[in-house]
Amino acid sequence: MDNPESRVTDEVRQTADAIGTMEIRGAATIADAAAKALRTQAEQSSAETADELRAELRAAARVLHDTRPTAVSLPNALRYVLFDADGATVEDVRASVVTSVVEFCDRLENAQTDLGRVGANRLRDGDTIMTHCHSTDVLACVEAAVEQGKDLTAIVKETRPRLQGHITARELVEMGVDVTLIVDSAARRYMNDVDHVLVGADSIAADGSVINKIGTSGLAVTARDRGTPIVCAAQTIKLHPDTLTGHTVDIEMREESEVIDPDEADEIGDITVKNPAFDVTPPRYVDAIVTERGQYPPESIVTLMRDLFGEGTTEPWVVE
Amino acid sequence: MDNPESRVTDEVRQTADAIGTMEIRGAATIADAAAKALRTQAEQSSAETADELRAELRAAARVLHDTRPTAVSLPNALRYVLFDADGATVEDVRASVVTSVVEFCDRLENAQTDLGRVGANRLRDGDTIMTHCHSTDVLACVEAAVEQGKDLTAIVKETRPRLQGHITARELVEMGVDVTLIVDSAARRYMNDVDHVLVGADSIAADGSVINKIGTSGLAVTARDRGTPIVCAAQTIKLHPDTLTGHTVDIEMREESEVIDPDEADEIGDITVKNPAFDVTPPRYVDAIVTERGQYPPESIVTLMRDLFGEGTTEPWVVE
Amino acid sequence: MDNPESRVTDEVRQTADAIGTMEIRGAATIADAAAKALRTQAEQSSAETADELRAELRAAARVLHDTRPTAVSLPNALRYVLFDADGATVEDVRASVVTSVVEFCDRLENAQTDLGRVGANRLRDGDTIMTHCHSTDVLACVEAAVEQGKDLTAIVKETRPRLQGHITARELVEMGVDVTLIVDSAARRYMNDVDHVLVGADSIAADGSVINKIGTSGLAVTARDRGTPIVCAAQTIKLHPDTLTGHTVDIEMREESEVIDPDEADEIGDITVKNPAFDVTPPRYVDAIVTERGQYPPESIVTLMRDLFGEGTTEPWVVE
Amino acid sequence: MDNPESRVTDEVRQTADAIGTMEIRGAATIADAAAKALRTQAEQSSAETADELRAELRAAARVLHDTRPTAVSLPNALRYVLFDADGATVEDVRASVVTSVVEFCDRLENAQTDLGRVGANRLRDGDTIMTHCHSTDVLACVEAAVEQGKDLTAIVKETRPRLQGHITARELVEMGVDVTLIVDSAARRYMNDVDHVLVGADSIAADGSVINKIGTSGLAVTARDRGTPIVCAAQTIKLHPDTLTGHTVDIEMREESEVIDPDEADEIGDITVKNPAFDVTPPRYVDAIVTERGQYPPESIVTLMRDLFGEGTTEPWVVE
Amino acid sequence: MDNPESRVTDEVRQTADAIGTMEIRGAATIADAAAKALRTQAEQSSAETADELRAELRAAARVLHDTRPTAVSLPNALRYVLFDADGATVEDVRASVVTSVVEFCDRLENAQTDLGRVGANRLRDGDTIMTHCHSTDVLACVEAAVEQGKDLTAIVKETRPRLQGHITARELVEMGVDVTLIVDSAARRYMNDVDHVLVGADSIAADGSVINKIGTSGLAVTARDRGTPIVCAAQTIKLHPDTLTGHTVDIEMREESEVIDPDEADEIGDITVKNPAFDVTPPRYVDAIVTERGQYPPESIVTLMRDLFGEGTTEPWVVE
Amino acid sequence: MDNPESRVTDEVRQTADAIGTMEIRGAATIADAAAKALRTQAEQSSAETADELRAELRAAARVLHDTRPTAVSLPNALRYVLFDADGATVEDVRASVVTSVVEFCDRLENAQTDLGRVGANRLRDGDTIMTHCHSTDVLACVEAAVEQGKDLTAIVKETRPRLQGHITARELVEMGVDVTLIVDSAARRYMNDVDHVLVGADSIAADGSVINKIGTSGLAVTARDRGTPIVCAAQTIKLHPDTLTGHTVDIEMREESEVIDPDEADEIGDITVKNPAFDVTPPRYVDAIVTERGQYPPESIVTLMRDLFGEGTTEPWVVE
Repeated sequence: MDNPESRVTDEVRQTADAIGTMEIRGAATIADAAAKALRTQAEQSSAETADELRAELRAAARVLHDTRPTAVSLPNALRYVLFDADGATVEDVRASVVTSVVEFCDRLENAQTDLGRVGANRLRDGDTIMTHCHSTDVLACVEAAVEQGKDLTAIVKETRPRLQGHITARELVEMGVDVTLIVDSAARRYMNDVDHVLVGADSIAADGSVINKIGTSGLAVTARDRGTPIVCAAQTIKLHPDTLTGHTVDIEMREESEVIDPDEADEIGDITVKNPAFDVTPPRYVDAIVTERGQYPPESIVTLMRDLFGEGTTEPWVVE
Repeated sequence: MDNPESRVTDEVRQTADAIGTMEIRGAATIADAAAKALRTQAEQSSAETADELRAELRAAARVLHDTRPTAVSLPNALRYVLFDADGATVEDVRASVVTSVVEFCDRLENAQTDLGRVGANRLRDGDTIMTHCHSTDVLACVEAAVEQGKDLTAIVKETRPRLQGHITARELVEMGVDVTLIVDSAARRYMNDVDHVLVGADSIAADGSVINKIGTSGLAVTARDRGTPIVCAAQTIKLHPDTLTGHTVDIEMREESEVIDPDEADEIGDITVKNPAFDVTPPRYVDAIVTERGQYPPESIVTLMRDLFGEGTTEPWVVE
Repeated sequence: MDNPESRVTDEVRQTADAIGTMEIRGAATIADAAAKALRTQAEQSSAETADELRAELRAAARVLHDTRPTAVSLPNALRYVLFDADGATVEDVRASVVTSVVEFCDRLENAQTDLGRVGANRLRDGDTIMTHCHSTDVLACVEAAVEQGKDLTAIVKETRPRLQGHITARELVEMGVDVTLIVDSAARRYMNDVDHVLVGADSIAADGSVINKIGTSGLAVTARDRGTPIVCAAQTIKLHPDTLTGHTVDIEMREESEVIDPDEADEIGDITVKNPAFDVTPPRYVDAIVTERGQYPPESIVTLMRDLFGEGTTEPWVVE
Repeated sequence: MDNPESRVTDEVRQTADAIGTMEIRGAATIADAAAKALRTQAEQSSAETADELRAELRAAARVLHDTRPTAVSLPNALRYVLFDADGATVEDVRASVVTSVVEFCDRLENAQTDLGRVGANRLRDGDTIMTHCHSTDVLACVEAAVEQGKDLTAIVKETRPRLQGHITARELVEMGVDVTLIVDSAARRYMNDVDHVLVGADSIAADGSVINKIGTSGLAVTARDRGTPIVCAAQTIKLHPDTLTGHTVDIEMREESEVIDPDEADEIGDITVKNPAFDVTPPRYVDAIVTERGQYPPESIVTLMRDLFGEGTTEPWVVE
Repeated sequence: MDNPESRVTDEVRQTADAIGTMEIRGAATIADAAAKALRTQAEQSSAETADELRAELRAAARVLHDTRPTAVSLPNALRYVLFDADGATVEDVRASVVTSVVEFCDRLENAQTDLGRVGANRLRDGDTIMTHCHSTDVLACVEAAVEQGKDLTAIVKETRPRLQGHITARELVEMGVDVTLIVDSAARRYMNDVDHVLVGADSIAADGSVINKIGTSGLAVTARDRGTPIVCAAQTIKLHPDTLTGHTVDIEMREESEVIDPDEADEIGDITVKNPAFDVTPPRYVDAIVTERGQYPPESIVTLMRDLFGEGTTEPWVVE
Repeated sequence: MDNPESRVTDEVRQTADAIGTMEIRGAATIADAAAKALRTQAEQSSAETADELRAELRAAARVLHDTRPTAVSLPNALRYVLFDADGATVEDVRASVVTSVVEFCDRLENAQTDLGRVGANRLRDGDTIMTHCHSTDVLACVEAAVEQGKDLTAIVKETRPRLQGHITARELVEMGVDVTLIVDSAARRYMNDVDHVLVGADSIAADGSVINKIGTSGLAVTARDRGTPIVCAAQTIKLHPDTLTGHTVDIEMREESEVIDPDEADEIGDITVKNPAFDVTPPRYVDAIVTERGQYPPESIVTLMRDLFGEGTTEPWVVE
């Protein structure tokens, strides 16, 4: 058999390019494109054996994966599609891939709505929530609750340094939610008025840790100290497959200028500015993770990860 | 006896005016001026009995007190001076007042230096501190430690909304301390590198609570969760005498515009902005309160309050 | 195809009526009857395709479900039976249903005994337990332990307002257990003498929360504060399927007269009396949930729920 | 000198008899009578030296003390009066005793009002309190707050077995407070609505522990778990002097029939009923102790005990 | 059919003898031998039906199991192999057994290496670990991390009474790790310098408890108190199947002479010496369990146990 | 006036020498000798003014202090004696010193007995205690309890590296206490059987921290986690006056050979051995400090320190 890499289709390569150049962006969009690219690979393949086709698919997955090796949704899409592709014939493998892609993309398309419904069910009429940063998954929960006729109040943390709380505030106002804006430091002062802290996730680790916008972990510690439930809303494409094998998630360090204007910093003197984008909240501070597949205690999210994406110990795109 | 109010001296009235117009400002400056005004009252009085003089002094205290009824250092100065003025003769009372004023002003003059030395003794060479807001008492501790030859590193929270952390950073750099500036939300992420959290106080209550810049209580909860010691540096003029009798401290609500530009807020929609200046940290999250009179666990600060300012149940300037 | 609702058998409708009129009552009895009704539907159906049969079964499930929409064991029975009914032929579906019903009813019949054995294994000879309310699942654990030859002592909370602790006390005495009766408020005073707190459950949520007789959550907080293990004994028919999708469990508010005689209340004056039947204990205060399928940490009970009753996001009786 | 015991006045002996026969009862009434009896002893004494008088006073104290050796207010009164009786002449001692008695009785007369004012200052308009049992000191706080124009809501625990919550409910209703009555087990369910838990004390120990009606400690653990402040209102005559020297407070075991009707108990079978009147709440679960002398963290109440009643290591009525 | 016990092969009996006499010893070695023995039984069987073969296999399992009824790895091997042996024909069952044995033994051979890689991924360059006792699984993690080029420092607890910390220290030094040896009591003093506490396991229970060398639970409490992550490294053969049904793990009591020389003890007087080999750490004090199948929060290890070894409620070697 | 240093008496200098050469050793013995030396200085002085005498006394104190600048009891003795020496005449000062010395030495002589009685009062008949290291103050409590007729059981930690637990065990056996010896790591396993953890102190800091034998802080964390009271028995000469001004207590690092035989260590390889003698237990893990002056919560020990030894901000032997 010739090198399976050479059989990767043009469509796969075009998708890979588009992901690499960020023409295709956003966790869900990337995942959708990658899954569909694998489908075209399966459909257009002239492989003669199941193993040949699997080799091709793995090669295609590798091409796609290498464009954005630190994205979370991309490997999840690839793993999901290749998870059950162990048929005996080319047709079996192809059918399995097509089925998986259809399933995956369907689920993905409805994921935010489905998740929103789950999250909304936890909220009661008259509740006050506190938010951090801007998460469309969190907003989907609130929106669904409002559509269920529930009257909600929100205390919105501004979320320095980039003040994404302003976006959250605007969208909540548009939904008809009563919004109070506060600085991040005021969270504990208002915690007593709060029924639920709602946060999103950048990714979620196999040990149940939530990686989310800097400030989430301190907020969670504060909420737990008062017994206020803290809920993380995150679609399953945020489950970080590398963490199944113990890998930790690299925390992006962002530009200092987001924290302080460089001229002002210079005026202060010779200081260091640290601007981590995210922090890590251990599972013991989180009450529930709300996904489009239902809600889970963070300690059992690993089970969902394995059900959806396999054991994680072997990465399908790695040349063995 | 005629109305003691009528015998209040011009000097006392001028001092009162200057405090009221904020010509005299700053906790220590106000306290010093008020104490000295009582001394002139005692010295210039033509009272013929001890009781007459005490009535005059209480009247003078009342005039001074009413200029800024919510200041903390002002009643402390008045209480300190009048605490022991229970002599039998005019001379006894006068002498007691003069002695108390001299003591009080001497202590006050040296308080920050004395406090700094106490706080510095808690720090070890090579330690990393984390600061919140800007406190000259905290900086006095650091300065004294640096003068003791200790090499310190500081993680400085910017302290939204007014970014007083920038001032703290500048002063620490000037002392030769290695400074890292972070947003407030990054405190927990860097807590593991921190040996001491150092904060100041706006005032301290009899139940051991620390009233300080918004964000202090969340920082303290976070520090305690990791076992990092949290120290509050505060001169004794910050001990809030009204709290001896259960009074709570009103938290100032500041301008919304400090949190968000009004035009931006309007653009977001109909939102409320809340900007409390301070919050309340219960004593169980604080390891020590460092004063110019030594260090105390927050739970025993009430003893110091009573030693310095009396039982607090009767306010010397209240007409009985 | 005509309306599948019209094909629901008389036996199903009779069972539904009996459940609705509470002629059939008790969680296990309802579940057993509902499962068997579905079996008769499958056996007597004249459906010509698998899909037709499934539609009929769903219609039958709907009829049964709507009689007691808030019961927990009823939907569990329906879900269990319909979970795997995805055969290709009428015969396949019918066979699957029959197998599931047999399995379900067998398990159910032995559930309390099986559960008792699991719970008994956690107890050691000479242990002291503390109980709240009256739970036949808890008593099954104690009984099995006694049969294993273990000598147990029990501290029984009376459980206001209905004093079900008296029933528990009587049954424990009959088993030969040494019983001490206390008021609910004395729980912490005797906690130090206790090796295990044993409670039942009204239902268990997907986030690991235990919904049980009012007072359970305070007891659990108290037990955790002293490090005393708290075990919840609950058959799997208590796992609340709606909570998989975030639904919260409505807490029944019972008659005020259980708390205070109305005449006495009137004499006190214009007061409100609140008498919630249950409260919610978060999973972090519970050490283990003992079921007839083995023991689980509360944080992983969601896995068992999904294994037994499906993902829960689609309810088989809902018309799509 | 003849036996000082023989010089104990008739008035002292009559007071002692009246305390012993419970003609004089109630903590404050006993304390008042005992202090005044010592005054008559001092006034009527024909002692010729200060030491003789002191011996007489100690003998009188012993007579009074032995009538109710486990009462808390009685030894406090005796200690307070004899604390400073170290004058050089009979007249000095007599004057000191008279002054102390006047002070003590004045303080005592106003103690509940003074305490109420201190406690009221902690409450804010619109607050919700939760109460346990019936404490006139707690009610004094609420009454003073209502008189300050504050609108309060109360959640009243019924307090099994003797249901003193009904009395509390009645008195709160009379003050115009909105009252909700609950069973003790419902405390955690409603804790989130509560701003302050207010309890009284049977006595308070030198290590800061609060001995109060059974159920207080579990309530305090529950309140602390949610961060709800818990305040104990107790006059200083409740400070238990024996505990300064490490003595623990015996917990009264009350009649079983308060818990269960003996016939009902017999019907259950051979059970033990335990009915402790009080339990012990460690200081770490209590935010403040409110006395007529101001508020204290429980950890510093020992200082107040020593200020009022001496070091406690020597009991003035013990024959040396 | 004759007695299946009589058909157990000589190879199985020889393996059983070798395990019983401890000729075959060590958790992994025993598991490997037992699995392979079942394979020979399956291969050499002359059974004519699937049920006959299964009866033989269960008999063989029983013979093997009874040699060391308290070992953990032995029943796991037997359960793993017999878990899926539910084929319809002799050939199906035989094939299933062979496949399971190959899988099991392959996994087992690579388990420590695979586990080491997972554990290593949690460690970062420059980290400091603290160890207790001597665990080859822990050392495998460190070794893999060192091979990944990570520079590690270790604080090694000596681990009284048998000082296995010395062995750990030696092996870490050989890997090039910087080692500091401390007495067990010094763990908290150095906890602040530690990034990860790494411990092994004697066995792991279904409720997520870790049974490990005495001192582990105290270490875990101390680590949690400071927020230091604690990781348990344990191959899946350590998962204790009996605990699925609530069984507790018996703690071995070892020789007193390990704690104190008998002569010294005699000299002290009539004392008892207790020397438990292990203690039990509840899951709430452990952050992750690292296995060769990936990492898990302790609360979800039960899911892995059931996936690998079945529900656990029926033991395949028990005669039904 | 000539140099007061030149007037220091020979007796003082002899005492200083004896302390310096450790001829006089042991905290109590040193304190007693130093106090008595000051008395001789006062008695033999030919000073003509009170100030002259005070200068001499300070000089004498300086000579004594400088012999062992890190001892705790020595400065306490000096501070106690000079605390109130502010008389107006030579005779006043002399009398004050003599009175203070008599008081101090009397107290000191009886301190352990007095302390024992206080500690014993906390223990109840039938209680089980756990001890760490060897503390005569702890043993005094147990002895007094035994003399009160209380039957006690002790779990004695051996206390590596120097196994002082063996001494404690012997002395407890001699008192008739039932003793169980365990390794330090077994503390948590047996904590559930323990009613009180009793430890001594090397010194106690103004912030309420207890400096005691390495392992105390981990034991205290473990005890608090189970709600077991932990009591520190320490005479007031252990209160560390330098800590009033924030000074921390240096922790002695002892010989490596106490931890491991140097040859064994060499055989292991190039390792570091750390052997700190003490650790620091924060006050939040300690329930009470038992002294000869009664019991205190650790948070209020600072009040006792100041009452006995002055504010601590000025050291009487420092040349001003």
